[in-house]
Amino acid sequence: MKNIYRIEHNGQTCHALYQGDEWFSLKGDLYGEFKVGDRLEVVKPRILAPLISSKIVAVGLNYKDHAAEMNKALPAEPLIFLKPSTAIIGPGDSIVIPPQAGRIDYEAEVGVVIGRVARNVPADRAQEYVLGLTCVNDVTDRDLQKRDVQYTRAKGFDTFAPIGPCVAPVELDIPLGVESRVNGELRQNSSTSELIFSIRELIQFVTAVMTLLPGDIISTGTPPGVGALTPGDRVVVAVEGVGELGNDVIQSGASSAGADNQS
Amino acid sequence: MKNIYRIEHNGQTCHALYQGDEWFSLKGDLYGEFKVGDRLEVVKPRILAPLISSKIVAVGLNYKDHAAEMNKALPAEPLIFLKPSTAIIGPGDSIVIPPQAGRIDYEAEVGVVIGRVARNVPADRAQEYVLGLTCVNDVTDRDLQKRDVQYTRAKGFDTFAPIGPCVAPVELDIPLGVESRVNGELRQNSSTSELIFSIRELIQFVTAVMTLLPGDIISTGTPPGVGALTPGDRVVVAVEGVGELGNDVIQSGASSAGADNQS
Repeated sequence: MKNIYRIEHNGQTCHALYQGDEWFSLKGDLYGEFKVGDRLEVVKPRILAPLISSKIVAVGLNYKDHAAEMNKALPAEPLIFLKPSTAIIGPGDSIVIPPQAGRIDYEAEVGVVIGRVARNVPADRAQEYVLGLTCVNDVTDRDLQKRDVQYTRAKGFDTFAPIGPCVAPVELDIPLGVESRVNGELRQNSSTSELIFSIRELIQFVTAVMTLLPGDIISTGTPPGVGALTPGDRVVVAVEGVGELGNDVIQSGASSAGADNQS
Repeated sequence: MKNIYRIEHNGQTCHALYQGDEWFSLKGDLYGEFKVGDRLEVVKPRILAPLISSKIVAVGLNYKDHAAEMNKALPAEPLIFLKPSTAIIGPGDSIVIPPQAGRIDYEAEVGVVIGRVARNVPADRAQEYVLGLTCVNDVTDRDLQKRDVQYTRAKGFDTFAPIGPCVAPVELDIPLGVESRVNGELRQNSSTSELIFSIRELIQFVTAVMTLLPGDIISTGTPPGVGALTPGDRVVVAVEGVGELGNDVIQSGASSAGADNQS
């Protein structure tokens, strides 16, 4: 299985597969049966967010090394919150710092992309409901997060959910490295082996609350090392087997390429 | 302007307008130009949730009479949180109490349905972005709300967002009565004149954070008198000029009619 991208091709957006040094159409249904189709006459396409989810269900404190660093007890169950679809941008789009912002942090996370309608999924059947993994940057206004207590505003601004560059059909139980870099400097460096609640457990927990739709994402929490971003920074989230998600940070008022993801 | 419904007609779902004792098709684009079309050969159609929003942005404490009752200071700015689209059900669908639930409360609210893409909308232009108003029941697990602090799980269960019965194109600045009844007994009875932050102010505040898409709903907070629901109850939310939204409460395991709203 090849990684799934969404690209601009001949002025249209389409899902595509990258193999060798070439791009191929995705033949069939992204959320059903599909295979490698025709070779696309494209060399360096613009890569978009791999999909527009109806929702991102994100998870609070979920890395053992992060809990240890903060001297926090391990939670008894996952803490979930939502990021809206309107926050999604793709690789290369800019994270826009809004005028009312405080300190803006990156949070590198592994995103689990759901492949079919998922409700009350037991952990041992979770793989059947997963299209693949992607990188997520759970961009957060740390000051508004503290002030509001509810995370919605702090984590819900437009452009605060970079995802991509692709959806990689990865086996759920293989530990994967997760890292972030700011301006080339390593900031977070951990592994999904440090997850307090595994991807399987998260799928069971979330789908016992709410139905997940095809394309929805569970963002699995961030490892230690989060920190601030300022305009001009470039932040990269990397997940082993998925690739790298890079975004520049700009101040509101400059132009952004993210808006067309919602059309 | 007539109230906008979504109904089942000839095995299909469509938007429709109710005038006199008759149903008419909606001719044109719900989120663009539309008018009354052909009369529909239907007497008592099944009325569905008037639309499936991409998100519901709900507002915490926002009624002066509620704040007074609870001896709470008026908040300096709105507190927002999200309910997922998968929680939406329509009139007549059942609110399903999940197995992990604690105390389940009704919360009658006025929902503002957005008519076109809304970003950074100033309060004095808010009316241009509104399709109309609807009734919302912000069903909440009060125990999980306290335990999680984040509201997402407590307010995000499937069926925890009854909306309807229609979208009523109401002027924003006219005070409207809001009430709830449980098994015929009046429980909440207030007016949007008690809103701490007006609908216009909420639209300005929310769209300065996140883009609202056509069909998205801002649920404007609940007046005093919230209370518990148990299986077998029937809860009605009524908003003046909009109508009544009635839902039965059942325990998980019984059959529910809500699931097909997501197809």
